[in-house]
Amino acid sequence: MDKTLSYIEEHGERFLQELFDLLRIPSVSADPAYAADVQRAAEWIAENMRQIGLDAVEVLPTPGHPIVYGEKIISPNAPTVLVYGHYDVQPADPLDLWDSPPFEPVIKKTDIHPDGAIFARGACDDKGQMFLHIKAFEAMWQTGELPCNVKFMIEGEEEVGSEHLGLFCKENNEKLSCDVILISDTSIFSNEVPTITTGLRGLSYVEVEVTGPNRDLHSGVYGGAVANPINVLARMIASLHDEKHHITIPGFYDKVEIISEEERQLLNSVPFDKEAYKKDLGVAALEGEEGYTVIEQTAIRPTLDVNGIWGGYIGEGSKTVLPSKAFAKISMRLVPHQQSDEITDLFAKHFESIAPPSVKVKVTPHHGGEPAVTPIDTKEYRAAERAMEKSFGKKPLPLRSGGSIPIVALFEKVLGAKSILLGFGLDSDAIHSPNEHFGLFNFRIGLKTIPWYHHFYAELKQNSKTA
Amino acid sequence: MDKTLSYIEEHGERFLQELFDLLRIPSVSADPAYAADVQRAAEWIAENMRQIGLDAVEVLPTPGHPIVYGEKIISPNAPTVLVYGHYDVQPADPLDLWDSPPFEPVIKKTDIHPDGAIFARGACDDKGQMFLHIKAFEAMWQTGELPCNVKFMIEGEEEVGSEHLGLFCKENNEKLSCDVILISDTSIFSNEVPTITTGLRGLSYVEVEVTGPNRDLHSGVYGGAVANPINVLARMIASLHDEKHHITIPGFYDKVEIISEEERQLLNSVPFDKEAYKKDLGVAALEGEEGYTVIEQTAIRPTLDVNGIWGGYIGEGSKTVLPSKAFAKISMRLVPHQQSDEITDLFAKHFESIAPPSVKVKVTPHHGGEPAVTPIDTKEYRAAERAMEKSFGKKPLPLRSGGSIPIVALFEKVLGAKSILLGFGLDSDAIHSPNEHFGLFNFRIGLKTIPWYHHFYAELKQNSKTA
Repeated sequence: MDKTLSYIEEHGERFLQELFDLLRIPSVSADPAYAADVQRAAEWIAENMRQIGLDAVEVLPTPGHPIVYGEKIISPNAPTVLVYGHYDVQPADPLDLWDSPPFEPVIKKTDIHPDGAIFARGACDDKGQMFLHIKAFEAMWQTGELPCNVKFMIEGEEEVGSEHLGLFCKENNEKLSCDVILISDTSIFSNEVPTITTGLRGLSYVEVEVTGPNRDLHSGVYGGAVANPINVLARMIASLHDEKHHITIPGFYDKVEIISEEERQLLNSVPFDKEAYKKDLGVAALEGEEGYTVIEQTAIRPTLDVNGIWGGYIGEGSKTVLPSKAFAKISMRLVPHQQSDEITDLFAKHFESIAPPSVKVKVTPHHGGEPAVTPIDTKEYRAAERAMEKSFGKKPLPLRSGGSIPIVALFEKVLGAKSILLGFGLDSDAIHSPNEHFGLFNFRIGLKTIPWYHHFYAELKQNSKTA
Repeated sequence: MDKTLSYIEEHGERFLQELFDLLRIPSVSADPAYAADVQRAAEWIAENMRQIGLDAVEVLPTPGHPIVYGEKIISPNAPTVLVYGHYDVQPADPLDLWDSPPFEPVIKKTDIHPDGAIFARGACDDKGQMFLHIKAFEAMWQTGELPCNVKFMIEGEEEVGSEHLGLFCKENNEKLSCDVILISDTSIFSNEVPTITTGLRGLSYVEVEVTGPNRDLHSGVYGGAVANPINVLARMIASLHDEKHHITIPGFYDKVEIISEEERQLLNSVPFDKEAYKKDLGVAALEGEEGYTVIEQTAIRPTLDVNGIWGGYIGEGSKTVLPSKAFAKISMRLVPHQQSDEITDLFAKHFESIAPPSVKVKVTPHHGGEPAVTPIDTKEYRAAERAMEKSFGKKPLPLRSGGSIPIVALFEKVLGAKSILLGFGLDSDAIHSPNEHFGLFNFRIGLKTIPWYHHFYAELKQNSKTA
């Protein structure tokens, strides 16, 4: 491993410049206006992969955005690590809240990142983290220290629900066969408290449309007698939670996993500082489901959030309109053993049932994804634990994340392999927000941790064979 | 009156073409982007006034949009009619719901307007109706049949609260002195049932901003523990009405006028067809304050409507954001003797008081206006009644409107004169909405009614002098 680590040391600055090139491509998968940029990002990655020695590199089309594949098979006897990541990014808006342009990466220091952080859309989620694996591979391969077979599957639709990845995995089952799937698309608790994500929430995402009158009306002439779809939508949304912030959709909690007292204690053992958390967010009080800690509310409990709402006149000044329609985008985070499709159905049925006769309601499902849990008593997990212990100098804790990587549950089902969520970001990195960033500390420690993972994973697998 | 009516007959087509020219100017007062067009509309009207013989025509600047003034004083002994109207229009959006461009007037037939209607923003509200007075003046003056002194005060800020008109009236009290103020900016019940508006609702219009966390957050990482300002705003809006659709703001109804049983009966005597009303709006059910008829809900009862709402991601596709802020524009229609400033204060205090500690709330007042009532036992009202009886062939009924012309109450206070609301539009004319229009029948009957008004008003005033 010495040569690998020296190589990383020596080429670190170039790695960063390459990442900057990738970050400059606005590969926003949600917006059709950026389709050509998404394609360009895929080709950029393929080209980089070819240059550093990966084989069978291809930009594989899907009915949506393409998937980049590349591999290096060193021996049929070596274990195979499949790296999954994504090169697409969230939309950058609201643009006016960015301190520097989202697709012009710069390094700036912050309180949490005194050594500096890379500011750009995708810096952390997931171009920056995904790219660590490509560069770690380069270092291991160029120094002759690659101990595992490696396959890369880098997609361009993660931020819009990975719609075509499931079929791709099914159709390329053989090509993608592996012992473990390694993903860096999550966070550690802090730079001082390394953690490995052992749970992800699932997702059900819907768009709702409430229609009142068949045209926009004058609120003076009609107001008071005709249902206002914005007022009605507000009422319907408000009714989705009770006073204890429980979700009121019938059947919503039926399948929710009940966590053992022991696991709850382990979960709550990370040094969570509520006052610092509130201060960082600038809020005087938190608001969550009664009876659960913040760690639990954001990890082992399902939630319902409105991600967007619009209706009526939203321009400058005032307009006395009683609008015809109002809209909202609503997502629910799911926990084991809730099922995305089932929850989407429950939501739609409930939402339609609570609509008053004065309006019509339409519920359109967007993407969904299943929750996932990683067991911690496996070689795959232990290799991650040891790798982090090497790079961070302390043993990482298992932690459940509130986020979703919908494809993790699918990988297990289709490819028959567990995923290890070896993330290096921080929750404060503002992913999905203006001023997304990724610490240089995190970039560098990620580059070192990944080769250690391959090292320990090969070792543990070898031992089990010879044992 | 014969020459006047013949002149109108002869020049009617030209009047229409002139109105089309005015409608082509997008004088949207709410949007600073149209400031030059608003100015252009004012100058167009002044030029038209000069051409037809009005004196002392001026485009008078205000700190906002200008006021057009013009007059014709025929005798110190003749009564003076001050015509008020406005040349500014509501914003045209949502543009995609217009069947023809809002600033390219066309004539199309509809079920309600078998003779055709002028489709354009401002066709009815208020360019079309205001212009009737200019052309009626032209007809009376050019034929030597003008019986009253006439003054015109045409403003450009009615759709944004007439902010500078109050001070203008105070400062020009002498110049504007008059016996009656004549305004055509309201509706008749139907082309078969002429009505005169005897009441207008007041208005309190506010914008609210709800701030949760200090930045947009990832809804997976933070959702469940951090208050979502959209969800909170929805909850707050929902709580502003109870299940009977009463408004819950403490003190809101304290000063509301209690209408006598007799007046309620008179109000409800117009032939209102609830099923036709629902069918026209495309709704299966109405929704309004319990215990009141539709006529009452929209005329003698105060209301609260959200006119616009926005927050979070409202673009294509999906984004899992827990936004920092959510906004709404909210207006309340007021009835005698509610006061706009007082209601705005009550709203702001209540809205702030119901905000949970997890968010911050800001309430910004936009414009407001006071409700107004016109007595029906005056010469001013009787002249209108007789004029309509002449043109429509049947006696008009008094009717209270749900809309607001905030300046009416102010006129009485500052100029010491009552306003007569001699409107010719229909509620179905889609003012403030896409596809606003004004019936040719209404345009023509308005042109005839106005000279009759001057005729009867001069006659009634003369009789009282000689009596």
